[in-house]
Amino acid sequence: MILLFTDFGPGGPYLGQMKAVLAEIAPAVPVIDLMSDIPPFDARPGAYLLAAYAPAFPAESVFLAVVDPGVGSARPPLVVRAGSHWYVGPGNGLFALVLRRAAAAGLEIPRAWEIDWRPERLSATFHGRDLFAPVAARLALGEAPPGTELAAERLARLPGADWPDDLARIIYVDRYGNAMTGLRAEALAPGATLRAGGRTLNRARRFSELPPGEAFWYENANGLAEIAVNRGHAAHDLGLAPGTEVTVANPG
Amino acid sequence: MILLFTDFGPGGPYLGQMKAVLAEIAPAVPVIDLMSDIPPFDARPGAYLLAAYAPAFPAESVFLAVVDPGVGSARPPLVVRAGSHWYVGPGNGLFALVLRRAAAAGLEIPRAWEIDWRPERLSATFHGRDLFAPVAARLALGEAPPGTELAAERLARLPGADWPDDLARIIYVDRYGNAMTGLRAEALAPGATLRAGGRTLNRARRFSELPPGEAFWYENANGLAEIAVNRGHAAHDLGLAPGTEVTVANPG
Amino acid sequence: MILLFTDFGPGGPYLGQMKAVLAEIAPAVPVIDLMSDIPPFDARPGAYLLAAYAPAFPAESVFLAVVDPGVGSARPPLVVRAGSHWYVGPGNGLFALVLRRAAAAGLEIPRAWEIDWRPERLSATFHGRDLFAPVAARLALGEAPPGTELAAERLARLPGADWPDDLARIIYVDRYGNAMTGLRAEALAPGATLRAGGRTLNRARRFSELPPGEAFWYENANGLAEIAVNRGHAAHDLGLAPGTEVTVANPG
Repeated sequence: MILLFTDFGPGGPYLGQMKAVLAEIAPAVPVIDLMSDIPPFDARPGAYLLAAYAPAFPAESVFLAVVDPGVGSARPPLVVRAGSHWYVGPGNGLFALVLRRAAAAGLEIPRAWEIDWRPERLSATFHGRDLFAPVAARLALGEAPPGTELAAERLARLPGADWPDDLARIIYVDRYGNAMTGLRAEALAPGATLRAGGRTLNRARRFSELPPGEAFWYENANGLAEIAVNRGHAAHDLGLAPGTEVTVANPG
Repeated sequence: MILLFTDFGPGGPYLGQMKAVLAEIAPAVPVIDLMSDIPPFDARPGAYLLAAYAPAFPAESVFLAVVDPGVGSARPPLVVRAGSHWYVGPGNGLFALVLRRAAAAGLEIPRAWEIDWRPERLSATFHGRDLFAPVAARLALGEAPPGTELAAERLARLPGADWPDDLARIIYVDRYGNAMTGLRAEALAPGATLRAGGRTLNRARRFSELPPGEAFWYENANGLAEIAVNRGHAAHDLGLAPGTEVTVANPG
Repeated sequence: MILLFTDFGPGGPYLGQMKAVLAEIAPAVPVIDLMSDIPPFDARPGAYLLAAYAPAFPAESVFLAVVDPGVGSARPPLVVRAGSHWYVGPGNGLFALVLRRAAAAGLEIPRAWEIDWRPERLSATFHGRDLFAPVAARLALGEAPPGTELAAERLARLPGADWPDDLARIIYVDRYGNAMTGLRAEALAPGATLRAGGRTLNRARRFSELPPGEAFWYENANGLAEIAVNRGHAAHDLGLAPGTEVTVANPG
């Protein structure tokens, strides 16, 4: 299974061109759009989203992950092996959190390869189609990563190595206006409140516990602390957008 | 064939997670996004849309339909059999119109089951992925509904049982700005006019009958009365949005 | 492979209905959304986009292309054979540029057929589902075009025959705010500048050559001249939208 995880947008020409490359090389492998509306221009929101979504997928899934504002610059193209999954995309920090959490879980030592294969024709601005998609398709077919494995000390110094374990910012706003933070709910003390958009937010377990219009935070279905307003649009009501800072207040 | 009918939005993380569950359980069954932008927060627009779109699909199609603002509340999770199709989703009224119209058609007595199967891990807020998708996948493989059939008197009292046969409101605005109503064109008298957004609208058969800029209503390709402006954006021009009331004026 | 190229929007009910028709007739043929957010109401932007995207796809690919503001009017429904690809859709100019460039390439003489097959039920407003999708599915299965071939003189007078080889207008704005023009970069002199939104824009090779915030033009990954702002939103910053005129200033 190949999971597409991009900032391309669902309607435009980029996803389809990438899928056509996958269909040519690996026609029998299912391809699923996991997200196509990751906040662009910064690898951090995608890095924390990917670490939240990836664990639930089957072993050997291949994540073709492209949030690549620096395409054409020196960031290395990577294949990553972490937590029984493969990841292919730019080495700009997008895989920093899946690498770190796989290392912390202690089951399998995470590894990474710098891709040294190049296609016949490599555009300056669309490595997702020209470089990463062919590599992802071949990984899904069982081929080895086409590159040089990074030594442990280089792996430890990749972009994103200095990012926090949990990010106290909004990383995504969904269609309902719910605003995900980069904070895992399990990393917050029981009874912790969040402060965002000038409001102090208590924790609830589900939407239906609260009257319509009330703002709160809860552990979403992938373990992240998420800010919502029951039957309302939290991002509009509280003025939240990707990048907005969130403050944690532990009780006591 | 599994048809996804949701308010999840086309770009975000919810559709992909649901599709991954379907691909794990029923990899050979085609999965098609029928709609992912149903108006959220209210089951009614989706209920009238589903009743308009479903009849054209092949027998034994499975509609995985999730507009679930009350997830986690007491609404029962349902499997519905109506008009030779299967439906899986929340019992919040979303299936009220397909049930009623199948009963009126008189071919097959509609049935419903309250799902009593539960997955190992059921999140509080994403039953589409955790509960409804596995059930839909197994129905598509030919398994029986995993629950208890509702008696006729309970079926008759499900949420939505008191909704009208046709809804005189806007239920959807498409990318062109065309505004669908919950009114079947065949339920309107020949020569009926609609009043919406302060304008009185005559019926036309096709866009090209009218000068650019002219507002009118017509029977859309699924039988609903739809408000449009030739080469214009009816929702902007007339101030229409899901929920806006529409008045029917019959001639005479 | 069938490529969907439409102005339907990614979330609404039109793509899914069309895909269900394809899945019924040609279940084994891969179907990929190439674009679903082409600017509507005018065939020109789509015509120049299609001519830019199509060449990279495999021979015998079928493009089901529907930008059809005049549905129901006299424009002929067409099958086109050009550059080793098939195209199905309205004869409103959408195929004018693929026809012309295939003729200019000189490898294979482009051909076109007016579709004279009609389905049992043809809606007045959704020929994409009712007419073009069945024809595309059968072409993908290897059947012959169901219609009458156009004589060379009629082919030469189809809508769009008088459009320019390159269109000095914005034809698409992507999710990053980058604004594609209908100008092929190879048709511009080395050192050419573009003028759009009151700004004079120099050419760059890649985003990372420029400081954040700087506007420029570059050859995009499909050969079009595209206006961008490094880590910014060119369409907002420069006031560009589909249809905006662009001026070319050649050096010297």
